[in-house]
Amino acid sequence: MEQNRIVRVDMTAKTITEEAAPERYRFLGGRALTAQLLLDETDPRVHPLSREAKLFIAPGLLGGTAVTTSGRTSFGFKSPLTGGTKEANVGGQLGHRLARLGIKAIVVDGASDDGWYRLDIDNEGIRLAKADDLAGRSNYDLHAELVGEAVLTRAAATIGPPGELRLASASVAVTDPEGRPSRHAARGGPGAVMGAKGLKAIVVDDAGAPRIVHGERRDDFRKEVTKFSKVVLEDPRTHNLSRTGTAGVVKFVNRDNVQSMPTRNHRHGTWAYADSISGQAIDELSQERGGKMAPCMAGCIIKCAILFNDANGQHVTSAFEFESIALLGSNLEIGPADAVAELDRMCDDIGLDTIEVGNAIGVAMEAGVLDWGDWEGTKKLLEEIRAGTPLGRIIGNGTEHVARTYGIDRVPVVKGQGLPAWEPRTLKGMGVTYSTSPQGADHTAGMVTARGATTETLIKQSRHEQLVMMAIDSVGVCQFSNALPADMAQFVGHRFDIDWDDETVLKMARTAIDAEREFNRRAGFDREDDRLPRWLLEEALPLPDGPSAFDIPGEELDKVWG
Amino acid sequence: MEQNRIVRVDMTAKTITEEAAPERYRFLGGRALTAQLLLDETDPRVHPLSREAKLFIAPGLLGGTAVTTSGRTSFGFKSPLTGGTKEANVGGQLGHRLARLGIKAIVVDGASDDGWYRLDIDNEGIRLAKADDLAGRSNYDLHAELVGEAVLTRAAATIGPPGELRLASASVAVTDPEGRPSRHAARGGPGAVMGAKGLKAIVVDDAGAPRIVHGERRDDFRKEVTKFSKVVLEDPRTHNLSRTGTAGVVKFVNRDNVQSMPTRNHRHGTWAYADSISGQAIDELSQERGGKMAPCMAGCIIKCAILFNDANGQHVTSAFEFESIALLGSNLEIGPADAVAELDRMCDDIGLDTIEVGNAIGVAMEAGVLDWGDWEGTKKLLEEIRAGTPLGRIIGNGTEHVARTYGIDRVPVVKGQGLPAWEPRTLKGMGVTYSTSPQGADHTAGMVTARGATTETLIKQSRHEQLVMMAIDSVGVCQFSNALPADMAQFVGHRFDIDWDDETVLKMARTAIDAEREFNRRAGFDREDDRLPRWLLEEALPLPDGPSAFDIPGEELDKVWG
Repeated sequence: MEQNRIVRVDMTAKTITEEAAPERYRFLGGRALTAQLLLDETDPRVHPLSREAKLFIAPGLLGGTAVTTSGRTSFGFKSPLTGGTKEANVGGQLGHRLARLGIKAIVVDGASDDGWYRLDIDNEGIRLAKADDLAGRSNYDLHAELVGEAVLTRAAATIGPPGELRLASASVAVTDPEGRPSRHAARGGPGAVMGAKGLKAIVVDDAGAPRIVHGERRDDFRKEVTKFSKVVLEDPRTHNLSRTGTAGVVKFVNRDNVQSMPTRNHRHGTWAYADSISGQAIDELSQERGGKMAPCMAGCIIKCAILFNDANGQHVTSAFEFESIALLGSNLEIGPADAVAELDRMCDDIGLDTIEVGNAIGVAMEAGVLDWGDWEGTKKLLEEIRAGTPLGRIIGNGTEHVARTYGIDRVPVVKGQGLPAWEPRTLKGMGVTYSTSPQGADHTAGMVTARGATTETLIKQSRHEQLVMMAIDSVGVCQFSNALPADMAQFVGHRFDIDWDDETVLKMARTAIDAEREFNRRAGFDREDDRLPRWLLEEALPLPDGPSAFDIPGEELDKVWG
Repeated sequence: MEQNRIVRVDMTAKTITEEAAPERYRFLGGRALTAQLLLDETDPRVHPLSREAKLFIAPGLLGGTAVTTSGRTSFGFKSPLTGGTKEANVGGQLGHRLARLGIKAIVVDGASDDGWYRLDIDNEGIRLAKADDLAGRSNYDLHAELVGEAVLTRAAATIGPPGELRLASASVAVTDPEGRPSRHAARGGPGAVMGAKGLKAIVVDDAGAPRIVHGERRDDFRKEVTKFSKVVLEDPRTHNLSRTGTAGVVKFVNRDNVQSMPTRNHRHGTWAYADSISGQAIDELSQERGGKMAPCMAGCIIKCAILFNDANGQHVTSAFEFESIALLGSNLEIGPADAVAELDRMCDDIGLDTIEVGNAIGVAMEAGVLDWGDWEGTKKLLEEIRAGTPLGRIIGNGTEHVARTYGIDRVPVVKGQGLPAWEPRTLKGMGVTYSTSPQGADHTAGMVTARGATTETLIKQSRHEQLVMMAIDSVGVCQFSNALPADMAQFVGHRFDIDWDDETVLKMARTAIDAEREFNRRAGFDREDDRLPRWLLEEALPLPDGPSAFDIPGEELDKVWG
């Protein structure tokens, strides 16, 4: 089977065509590939939900290989949330399967005029079929039906009701190794774009697919895989993630000298009840209740996903992540872990970006729509999103939309995208990344958590980390692998029989970032869009050594991409 | 009394200060003055509803004089609807009174932190007072209380509930000569900005104010006034307006070869039942019911305002205008005149821009929120706006907000502002104005209704008309006076004892347009924002001589401001 195919799905004509990827895309994958395809093929001024706005889906360059965590999948599109370039990537079982079926990218174009469709991809071919029976259904139900017992070879990517409603916080849910829809390409509204095309589900089954062949350097590749896995397993960061997942950071970020636990719509950086939603608290509950740590995809040796059970030992949610815990928890003053786990489960099931929805509900609480800490009210709001009521649509369209609806001028967004948990007023490097990432406020775009560093250092670190993250998202591994540019260069070199080094990797990443920035420029963004909202410059957090607001000036931020 | 005062109202500190207008503002008034003040004093990137976003209110250069129609008032601000520069001007009794009290501009800054306030201005002074008793109240009730029997000397400018809720289609209602709140500074959300400041009402009483003195050229001025009035009265356009108001054009624009009667969310340009909402039909009903034509301000000799009564001879609405009739009528497939008049009355009472709300409800009908032609449903929606329900807030935030909420990509806006009735696909000069006006889609920014003209001619005409309208809005007269630059130059010259000619007027206008465009540029607008939405280029209307879509390319549009 051709290993380098671009599959084009025209949802208007209901046709599928395939082509060998042009040479210029040969050494691009994941985020770098979708960024370039978006720039090459989508008019930056098109309405993101229009027939002409394409959706690009691509595994990384290392997809389908044995490199640990290398099965991530990128969804690239013009964002209905930000109006700019967008890539949301996701773990789960999709990426490896697509790559093993020889698919470099799926390009979804046009829009169905006659109801809902599903796309089935397997070793026999690719088929588009009517799927009105799937309409209106949520993700747990969908994945049980579409994947079910075939979990060892099959994975689905589905949208829930918010995707069908084209709401800007709608995610695409991807199957995890236990067959659940717990992994989400969430940020920026990929579910809305998929919904606007009339595509309810993509089901990929790689049974019978040939394993990826590595040519003459196969043995070198295998050796590198083993060596890299050893490095990952010995990394203390891995140990922490394997024990308490991303939730392990709660106790650290809630400290007085960090204040990165968003509380009450980002008014405070610590929450008195944060211990109740900490990784340690979750870990204790897990031990009582038979919860566990799991990989989000086959072959991941980190296993940072918390599978959280209720007091009866029944599964509540998987992938109970720090960002979800912070935005749906402390930011809304909701706890303990059981309460937040139920909200996380609901978001997975309904098909929502937990970060965006947590911010949106925080603004709704600020507007007086419901009280701080109102767990029942929050669940009701999530059900309203599922049902598509007017209030549900308001919340489901994201933070800025809620603020506009209620006339709120203190809006926790950058480029229209809701703030992650990492606090830019105390961890100023995060503010540099949030400001200057072409993706909008996105912690995964480049973590810089150094404190006390000079502005010059933070600018330099943010630039470097943004390039490294671009590379990581393009080869398709997880950031928690802590793969260095040299690691990626080794793997890509052996995989494709080419000579790459760390400089090649960073150069590829810079070209891809430039493609994203160029798309944004053509879409109407300018330097002033590379800024934090002003209240982050005005409302200081009370660190022990004095009040701390974000104070890196625009001229400095502009130096990131220079 | 100083005749050239800028009054600054700080709603945070509750202080009022006054200053003589600096020399550079001396020969600016109305729209040109507010555009320049906005550029000089408001950060273009500030949130339009924030404490720092100022509201500028200014009568025209000829305000307070005997020139017919010269009492218009400009409201300038950063628009919560478009995100750019905005000026909404309004007739009614406000402008003359402000000018006679020597006020060149009111600048409202800051925001109240302790409830609602009213600003009272009279010959004794200017006072800010608590007005929580006015909160939640609608305009008919407000003007009855605030103006009431004192209508001969008093005028109010008020916001209804949508202004308090800071909704982007909220208007400011100004008292007409009969004491009713029928005149609205409507476009772009001035009511939301006033509401964000905590200012519920401005009440101006010019009893005892000295009449404006014209110095040595007083007699020349008077002669010109008389001469100009004669010209206006003899103009056949005046005759039509005096008989059937702006509604008189319905029959004309509904013809097969014009197709400028927006129907079913701008899908069609003619409506089978347009006769039921025509000026002629309204005129016939008026004759039966004791309706009449009236001026919107004292001293206007055109009297184009339709005062519409019901079958029992009871007043329903005043200022029953073509734009309201088209957007709330044919665009929603609602008729006859009685039904639309009631919607118009409700918008005046609630405090809404009829054009924006008509477009917003058209998109809501397209989204399936209610059926085409559903008059009861439309009234219910307007009541939801008044009540501030989630659905009411969605609609009240305008066309683009409704489209975003319901995932609709066919959006009838330019720069975020809903399309007026004049059809850019058949009257392409209107498309040139809608595209290139710094105000967004605005028919009053420069009417170009020539058909069959070359692109070059349309570009030239639009530029000229936009400059003329800037001048008209700056001296503060009504466009229906058809004042020429030479007329305005004469009046301003005699009034201020300076030498102006038509070139001076057009140069002043160009400088002001440039100020508006510069504000937009700094706010993040670029050339691509000077474009119509794409569906107007793709969906043709079936004119007798062939399908007609908007087809003037961007490069040509860019020549308007060169």
